[in-house]
Amino acid sequence: MANITDHLFTPDGWTIIKDKYDQSQAITEGTNFMVGNGYLGYRGTFAEDTKKEYVGCIVSDTWDKADGKWEELCTVPNALHTTINIDQEPFTVSNNTFFERSLDLKNALSKSTVKKVMSNKNITVKQEKFASYDDLHIVAMQYQIISDEDTKVMIQTGIDDDVWSINGHHFSKEEKLIDQEYIGMKLTTKSYKDEIVVLKKNDIACKSVKQDDLYNYYECELIKDIPFTFHTYMIVVTSNDFKDPLSKAEEIYHSIKDYHSIKQKHMKKWEQVWNKLNVNIEGNLVDQVGLRFNIYHAVIATPLHKSLPIGARGLSCQAYQGSAFWDQEIFNTPMYLYSWPNVAKNILIYRYNTLKGAKEKAKKHGYEGAFYAWISGKTGEELCPDFFFKDVITKRDIRNHFNLWQIHISPDIAYTIHQYYEVTKDEDFLLQYGIEMTFEIARFLASRVNYKPMKDQYELNQVQGPDEYHENIDNNAFTNYQAYFTFKWALEYLEKTSDKIIAIKQKINLTHSEIKLWKDIKEKLYLPKPNDEGIIEQFDGYFNLESIVPASKVTKRLIDPEEYYGWPNGITVYTQCLKQADTVQLFHLYPHLFDQDIVQKNFDYYEPRTLHFSSLSPSIHSIVASHIGYIEQAYKYFKKSLMIDLLNTNEAVSGGTFIGGIHTAANGASWQMVVKGFAGLTYEENHIELDPHLPHAWEGLSFNIYVRGEQVSIDIRREAIYLKKTDNNNEIQVVIHNKKYILKDQLIIKEEKND
Amino acid sequence: MANITDHLFTPDGWTIIKDKYDQSQAITEGTNFMVGNGYLGYRGTFAEDTKKEYVGCIVSDTWDKADGKWEELCTVPNALHTTINIDQEPFTVSNNTFFERSLDLKNALSKSTVKKVMSNKNITVKQEKFASYDDLHIVAMQYQIISDEDTKVMIQTGIDDDVWSINGHHFSKEEKLIDQEYIGMKLTTKSYKDEIVVLKKNDIACKSVKQDDLYNYYECELIKDIPFTFHTYMIVVTSNDFKDPLSKAEEIYHSIKDYHSIKQKHMKKWEQVWNKLNVNIEGNLVDQVGLRFNIYHAVIATPLHKSLPIGARGLSCQAYQGSAFWDQEIFNTPMYLYSWPNVAKNILIYRYNTLKGAKEKAKKHGYEGAFYAWISGKTGEELCPDFFFKDVITKRDIRNHFNLWQIHISPDIAYTIHQYYEVTKDEDFLLQYGIEMTFEIARFLASRVNYKPMKDQYELNQVQGPDEYHENIDNNAFTNYQAYFTFKWALEYLEKTSDKIIAIKQKINLTHSEIKLWKDIKEKLYLPKPNDEGIIEQFDGYFNLESIVPASKVTKRLIDPEEYYGWPNGITVYTQCLKQADTVQLFHLYPHLFDQDIVQKNFDYYEPRTLHFSSLSPSIHSIVASHIGYIEQAYKYFKKSLMIDLLNTNEAVSGGTFIGGIHTAANGASWQMVVKGFAGLTYEENHIELDPHLPHAWEGLSFNIYVRGEQVSIDIRREAIYLKKTDNNNEIQVVIHNKKYILKDQLIIKEEKND
Repeated sequence: MANITDHLFTPDGWTIIKDKYDQSQAITEGTNFMVGNGYLGYRGTFAEDTKKEYVGCIVSDTWDKADGKWEELCTVPNALHTTINIDQEPFTVSNNTFFERSLDLKNALSKSTVKKVMSNKNITVKQEKFASYDDLHIVAMQYQIISDEDTKVMIQTGIDDDVWSINGHHFSKEEKLIDQEYIGMKLTTKSYKDEIVVLKKNDIACKSVKQDDLYNYYECELIKDIPFTFHTYMIVVTSNDFKDPLSKAEEIYHSIKDYHSIKQKHMKKWEQVWNKLNVNIEGNLVDQVGLRFNIYHAVIATPLHKSLPIGARGLSCQAYQGSAFWDQEIFNTPMYLYSWPNVAKNILIYRYNTLKGAKEKAKKHGYEGAFYAWISGKTGEELCPDFFFKDVITKRDIRNHFNLWQIHISPDIAYTIHQYYEVTKDEDFLLQYGIEMTFEIARFLASRVNYKPMKDQYELNQVQGPDEYHENIDNNAFTNYQAYFTFKWALEYLEKTSDKIIAIKQKINLTHSEIKLWKDIKEKLYLPKPNDEGIIEQFDGYFNLESIVPASKVTKRLIDPEEYYGWPNGITVYTQCLKQADTVQLFHLYPHLFDQDIVQKNFDYYEPRTLHFSSLSPSIHSIVASHIGYIEQAYKYFKKSLMIDLLNTNEAVSGGTFIGGIHTAANGASWQMVVKGFAGLTYEENHIELDPHLPHAWEGLSFNIYVRGEQVSIDIRREAIYLKKTDNNNEIQVVIHNKKYILKDQLIIKEEKND
Repeated sequence: MANITDHLFTPDGWTIIKDKYDQSQAITEGTNFMVGNGYLGYRGTFAEDTKKEYVGCIVSDTWDKADGKWEELCTVPNALHTTINIDQEPFTVSNNTFFERSLDLKNALSKSTVKKVMSNKNITVKQEKFASYDDLHIVAMQYQIISDEDTKVMIQTGIDDDVWSINGHHFSKEEKLIDQEYIGMKLTTKSYKDEIVVLKKNDIACKSVKQDDLYNYYECELIKDIPFTFHTYMIVVTSNDFKDPLSKAEEIYHSIKDYHSIKQKHMKKWEQVWNKLNVNIEGNLVDQVGLRFNIYHAVIATPLHKSLPIGARGLSCQAYQGSAFWDQEIFNTPMYLYSWPNVAKNILIYRYNTLKGAKEKAKKHGYEGAFYAWISGKTGEELCPDFFFKDVITKRDIRNHFNLWQIHISPDIAYTIHQYYEVTKDEDFLLQYGIEMTFEIARFLASRVNYKPMKDQYELNQVQGPDEYHENIDNNAFTNYQAYFTFKWALEYLEKTSDKIIAIKQKINLTHSEIKLWKDIKEKLYLPKPNDEGIIEQFDGYFNLESIVPASKVTKRLIDPEEYYGWPNGITVYTQCLKQADTVQLFHLYPHLFDQDIVQKNFDYYEPRTLHFSSLSPSIHSIVASHIGYIEQAYKYFKKSLMIDLLNTNEAVSGGTFIGGIHTAANGASWQMVVKGFAGLTYEENHIELDPHLPHAWEGLSFNIYVRGEQVSIDIRREAIYLKKTDNNNEIQVVIHNKKYILKDQLIIKEEKND
């Protein structure tokens, strides 16, 4: 048993156990112990919990704008709401004599065991819950009661329709279905008139005594020390899934036979997931479980059933609106790309499906091509409002320009398309989706650049890079390089000899003069180069800003602990203090673009200037630190990133905006820190490259990747690196610590002692 | 006698009399009743006043940076400091039985008469002061005492070296000259090591009883009812004027014979000034004196002795640093241009002399050519610091981008050069100064524009127009049109067949490809056109901002009455509320560019959205209102602008910065409101154009203008317009109310009844 914190343990690297109940942790634990399946997320609350404990079942593809500002996913009525009474006393988790809750990562089960004294009897309540990965519309719960004396128990179970919703009530119509064999609700959303059906199925072998509104009441006789078990199921279907969601929900209702068989199917699916995504860390159970915890959350946030976004808080709550940010491509996609490429493809097809929204956004702002939304939901239209932060001192709204100036989202997508293609060589995808998107992104960038005639140079002015504390800047190195590569790839794709290229050009009306312009921009786009000290300036004029090292000293300038640090006059605006990796991010995306010496100098320069006030920051620092051999720093940042959710290190509210919930990007990045960071995996120009450096805390590291149709097992030990290929159809070139090898079926590379 | 306010009168339209003493008005009256001569300004304080009454003698060309932020002109020790004692009781203005102070505008004399009871005697003290317009280094004071009983009076007169200075102490060395026949000081400034000599000469026919440090003491016998008069002089010379300022000051010291003769010479010079600049308003003494008051202040703020800037607060105090803003060209130069062209030329030569500073500023920010300073002092280097306003709520500094984004100053200078040339046809000036400046300004603009390749259009992004409450905007109509005309004129000048053009091109290394670029920019620079409603959008996106009409309603949103309204998050930033004329300013500069109908629609649209929180705003609204026939609105704004100083309507502190002192731009604009507004004077394409509309309050309006070497007297009456030419060498084309006439020696145009 390894301690994560005083009351958080793991016995085996697959399970997380909490042994103390703390109501103040309701937001955090509801998030960390949640279940989900990419279709819906059901928070890690207890059966008897309500709104005030932040119960929530968040359903994908149900965007609705209730308050006129934020379009967010709906939380739906809770059909698992169950309370039991013993001698009129309702069971609650508090005042327990024993408490244990756990998250079984292998099987994706959330469980709890609570013991307490109720009317002089020792009562044990065990709950178990999962969101089926086999039938995504089902959340199933098992409830078990044990008494040390014979007793009667009243069970009240039904649908709690008083939902926790952050930005308003989302249903224009709520129909109760109570005259059926089931209890249910049919809801209609305000904005898109989506229908959502929630049904409840009970499997309770006791006397049904009453049905009242949305609740059923049962009276059961408990026999001393004999566990009494019942099951209840929540079924969610929307009109976005099936034309007649009620019929479908009823069909599912009737399909549910017994808890154990659907649990078995669910677990089988998760076995398949872990076959692809499991990463073994030898020698450190906490790191092991932390990594699996993150991968688990990355998976349950990822819709597989449809091309939908991965929300920045997954399906853990409505914060960040269940919508895609650049996080999706840069932080979450790589794990899938290397281990489960179809999911990566599915993510990118979501971007293809939202091209129209991106084109409309470009048009709205006077540009052409595809200007992808900073916050992208159903249609790809921009969901990021102009004003959302509050100046907590003046109570005035702050205009944030995330939606207008943080343009790197578009080339970030082009980057990911290119990565996907490089790793998979999936020509079909490229011709059907990828090239068209890349062209439209290049077109957007061509309409966004400024040509400076006297300098004969193109620039990108008035942008915001990944570091969100500096808005309104010129020539952000990260953004300019991303734009440059977009033009480079677009021009490379144009060289492909395929009728489909001609068809795409025709479809999007791409002219010769535009292509000429792209070539010119690629030639003359200003790309900030390392200065005499080897440092790449984050943006024009950055070096002239006040240098505060370490950056954390700047926080002393706060007037109010809640105030926003950035635009327009927050404490970091005229300093070099960064919110998060920005130039360092560039080295992560292009590990071979600059000499290691330059990367190291930039890391040394920017790292102490970085506040890491974004959950996207530590992971990138970990990866880049690995690349330059700063292994213990890499490990420090790995731990920091890995534990963001488990240790609840990030704030739930910023500038007056609720930003709680799971940190999906950090979840996805955990895999990258290990595989791209410590193992040093890259895939470029047709070869796998590895440059492994195990942190001292580990004995070994093993995982599978899947490149160009072949699965490769990689096992990194102190003494050697073991590679194994499942099929041996093709040889694969491998570069390890800069030496070339050919992998046919397996390969063992002895490590030098000095590593 | 006509009332200006309850205690402010004019008997004749040439004199302003105040009959009540009010110490709280020390800042305002010290400004309004000041004397000056373009070399120095001496505030309208009393002989016995000190620092706490804001005594100040501000000397041109003595810039110094004391506090590391603001470079400002020096205030020098006060060599007129004089107190009298009767029976140990010092005379002060307070507790008087009679008070009258006056400003004689015709003769540029500031006077006061104070009666009070001192040790049971009725004492009258009369002071008179002028800053010689004949010898600019002399400020002379006459002091007269009358007692209704015989009495002794002690006179203490000397140099008060405890100066009022806004931004720190400016002298690194202060030498007292007290062992001479005179008392004096030799001061050395901190930044430029300028030497400033201040000498004092007394002409006091009484017994000298003591000299102590910088003061002389006299004991005089007053005879009942017989006035006793003495004189004292302050002499100021700096090393910027003469190599050996002390010798020069001594020379002046010895040249002073008697008060009356230097006063006569001074008055003679002012007679010549008024011969050029006087404007007669018939039928309204208050307007008449107000106009002359403004012209007086415009004149005393204008250096003639050297090409130096006209400070935005003239020489009335150190606010705005005695430095040039765009005010100088757009608000102050036109009066001189039409009435005293050499002064206009002198102003423009100042800009030529500071070309180096403008080029350095351009270079510093990555541009080429001449990027004129927003605040321009001795060298033309930028004196506007990055931070000067305070956020009064958070106490944090506010970054204002006046120095970086308010680029219209450069084309404003090109505009004025062109205006000067149009009116004077002074080819020598153009070839020696004007063209080179215009080319360098065009070059700057060419390096500042952004070419948008997809739109095939040039734009000016990230600017700030005249309306300072909207920073960081794109395509400000005013700025873009000013830039367009700069290119147009630069290209026209290039067509001149002169060797000097070739020489200029060689001197500044102007290449063929640059000229080609200018042509392209002139062709393709985006010029906002009237929309379907006829309105020109002030800048991209302005129409989408919150409309608040009338704009004054926005002030309700203030949290603190002192807070700055603009960047970064002031109350007007995301509204359409303007600080001052912006698009309307365009119609002032180019009265024939748009149809009157369009001008009217824009005036109707922008006027209610304008806060007029700049002293530059009402005058422009008055002129444009005149042009569209809104005569009574024009008159309302005329009064508002005319009375800014006399009624003290503008605040002395904004965003924590002292901005008191005379409103030099409004002073200069007063002439424009009358001559360019009500008389409708323009000079274009070789003809004088007049379109007079007298406000109801007036009977007539007459003034002289001086175009292309000929003086023309214009007398506008209700029944007719009378024009007279001094010389009758050439015929002048005149257009009046759109009809053409030829002026040979004189012309009388009968007015239609309906005017």
